[in-house]
Amino acid sequence: MQANSNYLESIGQRARAAARKLARLSTAVKNQALLNIARALEESQGEILLANRRDYQAGQHAGLTEALLDRLMLNRERLAAMAADVRNVASLPDPVGEQFDVHTLPNGLILGKRRVPLGVIGTIYESRPNVTVDIASLCLKSGNAVILRGGSESIHSNTALSRLVREAAAAAGVPEDAVQFIEDTDRALVGQMLSMREYIDLLIPRGGAELIRRVAQEASMPVVTGGIGVCHTYVDRTADLQKAVDIAYNAKVQRPTVCNALDTILVHMQIAPQYLPLIVQAWGQAGVEIHADSRAMSILGPMESPRIIPATQEDWGKEFLSLTAAVKVVDSLDEALEHIERYGSGHTEAILTEDYSAAMRFLDEVDAAVVMVNASSRFTDGAQFGLGAEVAISTNKMHARGPMGLRELTSYKWTVLGSGQVRT
Amino acid sequence: MQANSNYLESIGQRARAAARKLARLSTAVKNQALLNIARALEESQGEILLANRRDYQAGQHAGLTEALLDRLMLNRERLAAMAADVRNVASLPDPVGEQFDVHTLPNGLILGKRRVPLGVIGTIYESRPNVTVDIASLCLKSGNAVILRGGSESIHSNTALSRLVREAAAAAGVPEDAVQFIEDTDRALVGQMLSMREYIDLLIPRGGAELIRRVAQEASMPVVTGGIGVCHTYVDRTADLQKAVDIAYNAKVQRPTVCNALDTILVHMQIAPQYLPLIVQAWGQAGVEIHADSRAMSILGPMESPRIIPATQEDWGKEFLSLTAAVKVVDSLDEALEHIERYGSGHTEAILTEDYSAAMRFLDEVDAAVVMVNASSRFTDGAQFGLGAEVAISTNKMHARGPMGLRELTSYKWTVLGSGQVRT
Repeated sequence: MQANSNYLESIGQRARAAARKLARLSTAVKNQALLNIARALEESQGEILLANRRDYQAGQHAGLTEALLDRLMLNRERLAAMAADVRNVASLPDPVGEQFDVHTLPNGLILGKRRVPLGVIGTIYESRPNVTVDIASLCLKSGNAVILRGGSESIHSNTALSRLVREAAAAAGVPEDAVQFIEDTDRALVGQMLSMREYIDLLIPRGGAELIRRVAQEASMPVVTGGIGVCHTYVDRTADLQKAVDIAYNAKVQRPTVCNALDTILVHMQIAPQYLPLIVQAWGQAGVEIHADSRAMSILGPMESPRIIPATQEDWGKEFLSLTAAVKVVDSLDEALEHIERYGSGHTEAILTEDYSAAMRFLDEVDAAVVMVNASSRFTDGAQFGLGAEVAISTNKMHARGPMGLRELTSYKWTVLGSGQVRT
Repeated sequence: MQANSNYLESIGQRARAAARKLARLSTAVKNQALLNIARALEESQGEILLANRRDYQAGQHAGLTEALLDRLMLNRERLAAMAADVRNVASLPDPVGEQFDVHTLPNGLILGKRRVPLGVIGTIYESRPNVTVDIASLCLKSGNAVILRGGSESIHSNTALSRLVREAAAAAGVPEDAVQFIEDTDRALVGQMLSMREYIDLLIPRGGAELIRRVAQEASMPVVTGGIGVCHTYVDRTADLQKAVDIAYNAKVQRPTVCNALDTILVHMQIAPQYLPLIVQAWGQAGVEIHADSRAMSILGPMESPRIIPATQEDWGKEFLSLTAAVKVVDSLDEALEHIERYGSGHTEAILTEDYSAAMRFLDEVDAAVVMVNASSRFTDGAQFGLGAEVAISTNKMHARGPMGLRELTSYKWTVLGSGQVRT
């Protein structure tokens, strides 16, 4: 334990030292480092796939589910996609150094803000080895040092990838310790990492609900709370039926395993008799299992094909991450708003309506990172929102909310250009 | 303890309920509430001064220092100034509801951000009763509920002021629980308050270094770390002598008891023989005690009038909050930058120079909330920076840095206006 504590302490110190240098690197050097990483990913495929093979076999041996093995697995296509993502980050504007809100005060002081990196980012993540490269490249571009802690199931892949990243970045003049991966898989290190507020300015957990809750509770430093999306779509009395079917279908089916997928649909009682059979049929054809409240049940009646079971209390506020949807009939917009306030996770909430005032009330009153009118909740995403990439989707209200791109990994300093001014 | 715990829990719940209503109040209602508060401060002077008299006498009895008694004391002028401050907050633009960063995506979605309140602000503060009204009015205007915990030495004043604020705000239609003051002075409540992350979204400590450190360490919710300013002014080789004397004089003398006052002056060796005698003489006339390093000592030689004593290691990185300044001669800009990095608190750092490149390097390399060229550090202030008012000066990097006004008490939500878009 003592050795481990020193181990992490040393990583923290080296990250701080690297962060100071990184903050002042030119955009050209950072971009060159990213291009080097992309090329190395292509040129070292054999080596990385070999390391990944060891993780995969260990995972098979340990009885990991097919889904987990699939998340763990790398192949030539996935490595090529990772390289493309890194090149994309290189192509994004550098947020660091941007001077903004500049104006001259009556006393002649030129006041402004200048964007600066946060310092050292820590991240704790599970299985998917692409997160190693993904987070490292976003931190590098935004001038932050990063300490990566991956899951033990992908230790060989992550070790190989992080070494590749360090070497490729160093070849461009980036300090090696800008990216550090914790190669020791001792579980006690997570608790120690969470206590390192002196060395880590922001902690980003990427993984399941349990990890995120633990980090939010234990971390001594600021944390991006996010990744848990209990997303409601409310089909208002006046919704356009066809749009409402298309949107709810897309929100549930297009990629059901992610945080911005639809979990519960709330349907106004006046439109439910027309709407419910349509969406249930569409979902049924895609294999969606439906958990319906009693009013929805009685509208739908006994149906053969889609799997419909009665909803229970646990269905409200549940993030399904699968082809399952909860369905509830509500009396009014007010009831929908109350349900969302009670069960939502503050991620993405949508209203489908042709009623202007209902749309405006929903935008106004729902307290969530993203509120939508007549669109699929699947759009809540850094790339879709035009940020180029994202490190996380924050459900915090402090600092950044919703998709976090490069800019959200920065702070600012005030700059004051004077010519001898004193305060009177 | 159990009773106290329930007491705070109930305050937290009522703050949450009030926050939901507050978030949707119109600017007109909030401004009317503020104007009511200002008028009540003027009309209820007798009552408040009576309550303050009790605190003052208890303070005298308890042997509080003159400085503390002065901070505690209210009179007609101070109440009038408080009323004027509240009217000023009423006159500031309402940040809530501001729609910004609006643009249309290629798929036709209209994406934007809308400013919303943070929710519930908690504040723990010492002696000065004006903080009660000050923070309450800023939270009210920014649509946040607030839970106030003042010091026991001003309990009667704060109780009277907070009741006045609640009643005056309620008369305008603001929920009474928008402003809650903890009337129980049990010290254990502070620890309990710091654990209430479920009810308090942001905690702002206002007081001495000890309070701020305790809050930063113990609080379970985000905290504004600030209020501690170890401020350096570096007089570069090429500084304009007269400006450098005026600025350093102003930064130290104009109001020495506040966080943005000068603590240490770093003087380039080439200008020290001309500059040091000038500033030391000016400071000496104002009664500044000087703690000089050995090189400064040998330049100054034996002087009669100003009090000059040898600096010790403890002087570097010390916030004096009094008419005391540390003086150090440095070989170079690099040495000044290293000293600031090592001993600064990340508040305000200034360079006095006519050398363009030195100024640019200083702005670039110093990591502080505010970096200045040729200006007095005393300008770091919400009112001076044009924010109208400030709740705190943050030395955090997350969320807000430097002076925090109304806008810095808000978050945002993303708004998405669609017309049936689905993700492909």
